[in-house]
Amino acid sequence: MKFSVHRAAFLQYLNTAQTAISGKTTLEILTGVKLNLSADALTITGSNSDISIETILSIADEDAQLTIEEPGSVVLPARFFGEIVKRLPEDTFTLTVNDRFQTTIVSGSSEFTINGVESEAYPHLPEIDSKDQLKIPGDLLKQIIDQTVIATSKQENRPMLTGIHLTINESELTAVATDSHRLSQRKATLENNATGNYDILVPGDSLSKLSKMLGETQEDVELQISENQVLFILDHTSFYSRLLEGQYPNTTQLIPNSASTTVEIDAHSLLRSIERASLLSHEGHNNVVRLVVDPAANTATIFGNSPEIGNVEEVLDFNQIEGDELEISFNPDYMKDALHAFGQSEVKLNFTLPLRPFTIVPSEDDGSFIQLITPVRTA
Amino acid sequence: MKFSVHRAAFLQYLNTAQTAISGKTTLEILTGVKLNLSADALTITGSNSDISIETILSIADEDAQLTIEEPGSVVLPARFFGEIVKRLPEDTFTLTVNDRFQTTIVSGSSEFTINGVESEAYPHLPEIDSKDQLKIPGDLLKQIIDQTVIATSKQENRPMLTGIHLTINESELTAVATDSHRLSQRKATLENNATGNYDILVPGDSLSKLSKMLGETQEDVELQISENQVLFILDHTSFYSRLLEGQYPNTTQLIPNSASTTVEIDAHSLLRSIERASLLSHEGHNNVVRLVVDPAANTATIFGNSPEIGNVEEVLDFNQIEGDELEISFNPDYMKDALHAFGQSEVKLNFTLPLRPFTIVPSEDDGSFIQLITPVRTA
Repeated sequence: MKFSVHRAAFLQYLNTAQTAISGKTTLEILTGVKLNLSADALTITGSNSDISIETILSIADEDAQLTIEEPGSVVLPARFFGEIVKRLPEDTFTLTVNDRFQTTIVSGSSEFTINGVESEAYPHLPEIDSKDQLKIPGDLLKQIIDQTVIATSKQENRPMLTGIHLTINESELTAVATDSHRLSQRKATLENNATGNYDILVPGDSLSKLSKMLGETQEDVELQISENQVLFILDHTSFYSRLLEGQYPNTTQLIPNSASTTVEIDAHSLLRSIERASLLSHEGHNNVVRLVVDPAANTATIFGNSPEIGNVEEVLDFNQIEGDELEISFNPDYMKDALHAFGQSEVKLNFTLPLRPFTIVPSEDDGSFIQLITPVRTA
Repeated sequence: MKFSVHRAAFLQYLNTAQTAISGKTTLEILTGVKLNLSADALTITGSNSDISIETILSIADEDAQLTIEEPGSVVLPARFFGEIVKRLPEDTFTLTVNDRFQTTIVSGSSEFTINGVESEAYPHLPEIDSKDQLKIPGDLLKQIIDQTVIATSKQENRPMLTGIHLTINESELTAVATDSHRLSQRKATLENNATGNYDILVPGDSLSKLSKMLGETQEDVELQISENQVLFILDHTSFYSRLLEGQYPNTTQLIPNSASTTVEIDAHSLLRSIERASLLSHEGHNNVVRLVVDPAANTATIFGNSPEIGNVEEVLDFNQIEGDELEISFNPDYMKDALHAFGQSEVKLNFTLPLRPFTIVPSEDDGSFIQLITPVRTA
């Protein structure tokens, strides 16, 4: 096996595959990255058993200047190989693998020799036998992931809640995540798709990694779904994730469809107020802030308190409040995550009773995005 | 006590004082920051017993818009107070302390109340009764610190070696640090100074913090030295550090004054080569790289090796080599630290024997800066 390539271009492909590689793996060979060289392309694969990423660097990519002298394959220690390539002195390098998988990397007057291993032992990628083609623009997929992954559980005791529940009903996609204290739901319409119904549960961690890779691309991402795997194909990259098993809770009936008190407010301004209040609540025993809405007096006030340090009180700068007087307490961190997902827009908070979940939706609500937070009972 | 002030300006002064404050202190009150308000200035003090920093915000500083309503003093929880001020909504804030040291901070519609304590319990700053005035330009002091602190020991078992040894002999300043494996020595001439002889040992950690504060200022820093304290005065800030006790080893005789092999090379290019070689040496048992200089063949080659991962060999791109053939092994991390201190300039490596210390000096050596590294004996 022998090729030479432009260092910076190669590094981009390598970094993408490395996203899947973890130092903590029970399978020794998965600390390695697999290089497979055919007559016209170099395929780079990384995996941590939960997710696998394959990127294909083709001789057609002129920037990469890939010159193939002899096809073959090898598995190299991923972290080292990356560190070495990053630090090579010249713009290009040549990589040669001998028949004992000793790999020589030459760039300028620098020559590394590292011990590779045979690629036969490297696990095969999942085979996905998909009939349907689902397509979704990259930026929309990223938004859907980012807006819901915040509500996934980080605890492993209920594995199902660490996932994002994706259902596709003809052209209607719904993504839901909940850790049982809060919930985030996003809907979107998929255009130009083959019809089909799907119901899958994808680990939140996998989708977080996918979201980082998506960047700002508007290009379509293709989805292929099998019984226990999902494959996302974008550009030169295939991203595989295992699916979670089990029956996801029915979340529809959790979302209240009426409100007795509403507050319309700028999401960013409320976020800043909550951040200030949480400075003190974080020091308290139960990390709770209190919101008092008084429509008669036309005021909404947020309170944070820590018996040892002190307290904070802030009159909110809202656009409109309506309905009944209300006093409610909640975890400010859930509110911060929720508000981050709205960015600079105006939101509407819908409350019913002090101990019933409340929702946050865009002020111009079209039903496509809703976040729900369960309040905290205080003494 | 009551004042109002421009938030961003105040934060700069506060951050400077906070440099001295550590969360890990045995003296509870030192987790606090002391504010002392006179009729014309606010003095902010932080301390961790080793170092103390006092900054003075005067009503004369127009950007700070300091308005004093009632003098007084208080000690506030430093971390919280900083976090609060950082997040206040408006450009200015008002701080009021009542007679139970409850402190109210108001900015816009946000009102914090935090529990302060009486400042009587706060330790007094060291009194320094100095006759002489020593002055040194800020940028030169920073350079002297940065070039020597790298060679201080990080281990506490020989406390003296954690310090930088400063001697002033009339107008000649010498700074030396050594951890017994390497040494760095910098000399400078102080201009326009009162004469005097000093010999002090300042903790490397203190000087690192001072260096960060100095930034790029060319203004003079004033030094005042007492038996067990040194005080650096710059601008509105007084920086106190305790001194280390004991007789610093005589380092003069450690520095060889002849060489049998010399290599002249660009410091930055050698640094990059050493970084590549250390990728592999870091994985070996003894973190050693090997340098082979062959003046007859006009080559110098660096080798790094890890039995498990592989090895690297690189022919160096030097400007000139002279003298005897030589093979020497050393810790690449010491070499990296040393080369960093030279920046983009050309350096000269002076070797005698494979097991004798070697030195690195600027190519145009005027005796003002020298670094020494002890080689490693290999099997």
